[in-house]
Amino acid sequence: VRSFILVGQTAVGSPDFSLDDLPGSSGRLDILLRALQSALLISHGLRRDTLAYLVLLGTPGCPSVVRVDGRVAEFLRPDERSLGGRIKNALGWKSIRQDFSEDRQGIAVARGGIELAIADLEGSTPFVLEEAGVDVRAAELTAEHPTFFVGDHLGFDRGTRERIERLGATAISVGPIRLHADQAIVVLHNELDRREPLCATTTPQ
Amino acid sequence: VRSFILVGQTAVGSPDFSLDDLPGSSGRLDILLRALQSALLISHGLRRDTLAYLVLLGTPGCPSVVRVDGRVAEFLRPDERSLGGRIKNALGWKSIRQDFSEDRQGIAVARGGIELAIADLEGSTPFVLEEAGVDVRAAELTAEHPTFFVGDHLGFDRGTRERIERLGATAISVGPIRLHADQAIVVLHNELDRREPLCATTTPQ
Repeated sequence: VRSFILVGQTAVGSPDFSLDDLPGSSGRLDILLRALQSALLISHGLRRDTLAYLVLLGTPGCPSVVRVDGRVAEFLRPDERSLGGRIKNALGWKSIRQDFSEDRQGIAVARGGIELAIADLEGSTPFVLEEAGVDVRAAELTAEHPTFFVGDHLGFDRGTRERIERLGATAISVGPIRLHADQAIVVLHNELDRREPLCATTTPQ
Repeated sequence: VRSFILVGQTAVGSPDFSLDDLPGSSGRLDILLRALQSALLISHGLRRDTLAYLVLLGTPGCPSVVRVDGRVAEFLRPDERSLGGRIKNALGWKSIRQDFSEDRQGIAVARGGIELAIADLEGSTPFVLEEAGVDVRAAELTAEHPTFFVGDHLGFDRGTRERIERLGATAISVGPIRLHADQAIVVLHNELDRREPLCATTTPQ
């Protein structure tokens, strides 16, 4: 299983944004939506071996984490508006708690910050996407359950960076040109896909 | 210079679609928009060495080609709705002709099909993204001006495929798992970025 923790410093943890203006109204949730797309979706299907966590730290609204579990999620479409609608809907559920107990069809929401995702992935091997990291093609990536921390357009705030460092995450870079988060995830997946035998877990939705 | 010819079999060549429902109203122009994003945009900037052609063959509307020239384009934002708005706007210009004479700030539109893009790129070296192609990591990619043909969710129609073959295009594949067009472009760019010295042409917008 591969996991991605997508940290949105300004992305709102409430459904109070407009699908007609995602960049302007959601604190750049659009960046995380594109990252979610590249983490989970492939041609005519879903990556059934991948989980993505959207860590939404912006205001207004409480910090929230949305977990999308590629192993069981259904009906995810790749366009931003559709994915945004799914996340907006989930953030509006009534009984969201401080754990992932509120889980419907592979989408779960909890109130809280990055610690929720870290706790949920206990025992996994942490990596972080960073320009100064080891090139992904040279990196040791044999962990059975790798977790990749990915920042947004602002990178990571200091507290988050320190937390990731304390976890002992290995820094990985994806190439000579600085890419968007979604693009970096594509390069990373491609490297992992090449190292693993073609897995039968990438089934159509 | 790198060029991408993105062929949309069903994507409409008129502005008669809704930004509120790109997948449902535009003949899946959303697929080409994501491909455009990954072809031209990088973190905090544009690829100043790249051109993208959106070949829009769907109905209603006449077949049209939109050329986005990364060398001179400005104010491109990565979200689908914003890119879709730019393309919709361009498709509505009054005096579009059968050449790219209608060109504003790096976005040009012409009425016609794939031949327009092919003629515009005369002298370039053709490649085509295909599952059965040579792995991109092993491919000969030294052409000074490579042009990459990329299909949509339906692949290429027979006529287009035959035309690309007649050009003598080299088929390139990007890995063991079948990816979306935008994802395949990211992998391809990454390979090219690694082979070329870090270029100074990727300047901020």
